[in-house]
Amino acid sequence: MEKLKGMSAEVKVAWAQACSQGSFENNAEYYLSKCQELAKQGAELIFLPELFLWDYFAIREDMAVFDQAITLDSPTLKPFKECAQLNQLTLFLPIFEKRAPGVYHNTVVAIGPQGEMLDFYRKMHIPDDPCFYEKYYFSPGDTGFKVIATPKLNVGILICWDQWFPEAARLTAMKGADLLYYPTAIAWDQNEPGEIYEEQCDSWRVINRSHSIANGVYSLAVNRVGTQENLTFWGNSQLTHPTGRVMSLLGSEEGSVLMELDPSAVEAHRKAWPFFRDRRIDAYGDLLKRWGDS
Amino acid sequence: MEKLKGMSAEVKVAWAQACSQGSFENNAEYYLSKCQELAKQGAELIFLPELFLWDYFAIREDMAVFDQAITLDSPTLKPFKECAQLNQLTLFLPIFEKRAPGVYHNTVVAIGPQGEMLDFYRKMHIPDDPCFYEKYYFSPGDTGFKVIATPKLNVGILICWDQWFPEAARLTAMKGADLLYYPTAIAWDQNEPGEIYEEQCDSWRVINRSHSIANGVYSLAVNRVGTQENLTFWGNSQLTHPTGRVMSLLGSEEGSVLMELDPSAVEAHRKAWPFFRDRRIDAYGDLLKRWGDS
Repeated sequence: MEKLKGMSAEVKVAWAQACSQGSFENNAEYYLSKCQELAKQGAELIFLPELFLWDYFAIREDMAVFDQAITLDSPTLKPFKECAQLNQLTLFLPIFEKRAPGVYHNTVVAIGPQGEMLDFYRKMHIPDDPCFYEKYYFSPGDTGFKVIATPKLNVGILICWDQWFPEAARLTAMKGADLLYYPTAIAWDQNEPGEIYEEQCDSWRVINRSHSIANGVYSLAVNRVGTQENLTFWGNSQLTHPTGRVMSLLGSEEGSVLMELDPSAVEAHRKAWPFFRDRRIDAYGDLLKRWGDS
Repeated sequence: MEKLKGMSAEVKVAWAQACSQGSFENNAEYYLSKCQELAKQGAELIFLPELFLWDYFAIREDMAVFDQAITLDSPTLKPFKECAQLNQLTLFLPIFEKRAPGVYHNTVVAIGPQGEMLDFYRKMHIPDDPCFYEKYYFSPGDTGFKVIATPKLNVGILICWDQWFPEAARLTAMKGADLLYYPTAIAWDQNEPGEIYEEQCDSWRVINRSHSIANGVYSLAVNRVGTQENLTFWGNSQLTHPTGRVMSLLGSEEGSVLMELDPSAVEAHRKAWPFFRDRRIDAYGDLLKRWGDS
């Protein structure tokens, strides 16, 4: 990226992790207030956790929950659009999207500084584990991998389970992302032994750091916190530098962060560790297979 | 893998990290002795560092060095083959391979319990940085990604720079590897500021852990130690469990490790974290491109 002389290279990014506040309306109110607060502090981009308006409903399969989904142009998003416009910032809003009767997605909507929808991304990799019954609710995304160009930072959007797939990080970086944003809802399960909790959270933090390292990009995971039945969402929202260094790490309580990033660190790091130069694209064909026997 | 009743599931694996001993002959003697020692302790598989018989010659471009390369059937390997046969074990020997006049590779030769060459792998991703002039010496590998089936453990072979490419780990895991083995020669450069040393080593350890996590495999990096001109090889040879947990970590001194692994942990972990189920192979086509603009 060529820089104009005298133009600040830094961009102020912010994110918040919280418990579900008990209802859709309460969550909307809580996070709108949080966005306004961070905007006043100078945030230019704000990132929220996965499905920020909802309890983590995928804890069970419940047909009634489909009625809680909202459309891309839902009036619920209007006050957030106004906040973005008033403060000239970009907001990333992870929603439960109703696309059509019987077609639902786990989606991030990006709202730009004119209050307009810049673009959206539908979660490509859908998990399904006990108490994370997401395949019941969400069709796999068909948007492909997405990068949102904002004035100072190109943001790649990926969602939670996507973070376990190096392919997704790579493809999004190759579209020009400076930062990979992973809104997340990941939890410890009280049905599992407590002694593996630390290891699970650590592996999650490591895989997020690895995306920075392999791709020379910032990586930001924004998780929720709080306990819902047997699930305790572990927070630990984390930002890593293109080197993989941890720049910010929250704990397991509610909290928010506002900090400055230097987008030029992406290019600087890739000059030092030039991995993109050496990818063996002639030998990667089998990545398009399910397994090595086919 | 189905297990025969009463058959031990554990496999004893061993590795050693050392300084270059000053000459090709000294290194051959040192590592042969080390292999014999580890064999006596019951090792079933032994893993050595990258280019274990040589100083790290790629620190400069020197035409005379090509004469130090050896062929796949070099007599230098004979005592190692005898050691493998005598002790009924499998040895992984990283060599500077002369394939033909003007065609050289950075290669691992796998020697089986009958003293026979089981297979070989030629480094696919070749680095080139100041003091790591490997593109001068090594043609990029044309073996593709390789897994060596041994009686209790399927070993995927990758070499040093390969470890920064999640594609290589994924493709090797998809060929059935239980363990990814990365012989390595990675160093701190005294021409770089010392305050980034810890960060560099940490990023390297994180990327190796990430291959375990993303692929549900053991990952073993075996580095050299010692200082050669401005390069200090940082050791830190590390084994990680399929969860990403660090099972063994050496320091920056010479050392060796012998430990038991349970290959069934691979399948057990993949049942808990079923990433291979959910790869979006319909959406990964652009991984075969150099960059997102083409």
